[in-house]
Amino acid sequence: MGRWQPGTRDRLRAAAIDLFVRQGYEQTTTAEIAAAGGVTERTFFRHFADKREVIFAGQEDFVGLFVDGIVRAPDGRTPMELAAAALEASAAFFPDEHRDYARRRMEVVTTNPALQERELLKMAGLGAAVAQALRARGITEPQATLAAQSAVTVFGVAFRTWTTEGETRSLAEIEREVMGELGAVTAG
Amino acid sequence: MGRWQPGTRDRLRAAAIDLFVRQGYEQTTTAEIAAAGGVTERTFFRHFADKREVIFAGQEDFVGLFVDGIVRAPDGRTPMELAAAALEASAAFFPDEHRDYARRRMEVVTTNPALQERELLKMAGLGAAVAQALRARGITEPQATLAAQSAVTVFGVAFRTWTTEGETRSLAEIEREVMGELGAVTAG
Repeated sequence: MGRWQPGTRDRLRAAAIDLFVRQGYEQTTTAEIAAAGGVTERTFFRHFADKREVIFAGQEDFVGLFVDGIVRAPDGRTPMELAAAALEASAAFFPDEHRDYARRRMEVVTTNPALQERELLKMAGLGAAVAQALRARGITEPQATLAAQSAVTVFGVAFRTWTTEGETRSLAEIEREVMGELGAVTAG
Repeated sequence: MGRWQPGTRDRLRAAAIDLFVRQGYEQTTTAEIAAAGGVTERTFFRHFADKREVIFAGQEDFVGLFVDGIVRAPDGRTPMELAAAALEASAAFFPDEHRDYARRRMEVVTTNPALQERELLKMAGLGAAVAQALRARGITEPQATLAAQSAVTVFGVAFRTWTTEGETRSLAEIEREVMGELGAVTAG
């Protein structure tokens, strides 16, 4: 197989998650991931800086979707309508065919404290970026931070639900429902 | 001065923050903190495991106040009323005479990425503990997590406001106001 063949990256990711789930994240080497993905270790390092990167690559694209959702929203939207637009846009990052990968990735992350910390930092970075995008749309503080943190909260709860065994609804659908639940909870 | 004299701990904390703000967290040694607090380094280590601990000691007490607020709330409270009880109880941890210390502590934390990470983990731990306390009061998911995360969001925004130069309102008063703002934002 050609080294630059499209799909190598995804194949390495799938191979890595298989190994992480089967034998543990700490116990898996980049050489094993490369072999399972049918490439040399050298090719592995052309795609990912290290083992952890396989799990966290794409952070910029992920955050960028939320931000784009806010940038592209029509004028006159409330802070929470803009947050909803960000959530809606983010769902494109997680089509249903990625659900199984996402579920197993989450399994790996939640059983490893260092990965869990990295995930928390990722979510903190997301909250900061969304608040910044809201301020760029003229939303003042504290509304920008409150709406941004609420979006992160909704995303977290919705994402966990989406990756639950047996769940069939799309992430966008679950996000809308959780958003409604947040409104009901905070109004109470 | 006696090694176990009450107040040594607070004096060390104040001395440490002075040094951190003046010469930088990384550049300050435990020996310098001890000297500035008028004790030996050995005594410093009776009070704190390391330099970072001076900044983060008291996490359990801090989280405990939130949890106690929920445990002690009367029956029949909504998830958000329980979250408000947690916030109200937490304000006891931050009387106005600690505001100056808190402001300078935050200055140190926000200019040091490693301390910032530790602070994020502390807040994540708080969110998990509050959600757990809400579930123990019979609140089901996702309401427990949504209310807990909302409490953490309100606390974060209120705390930053409380430590703003020139701010004179109590933390409890600001928390109530931010709670109202969150309700208005998420209803919109």
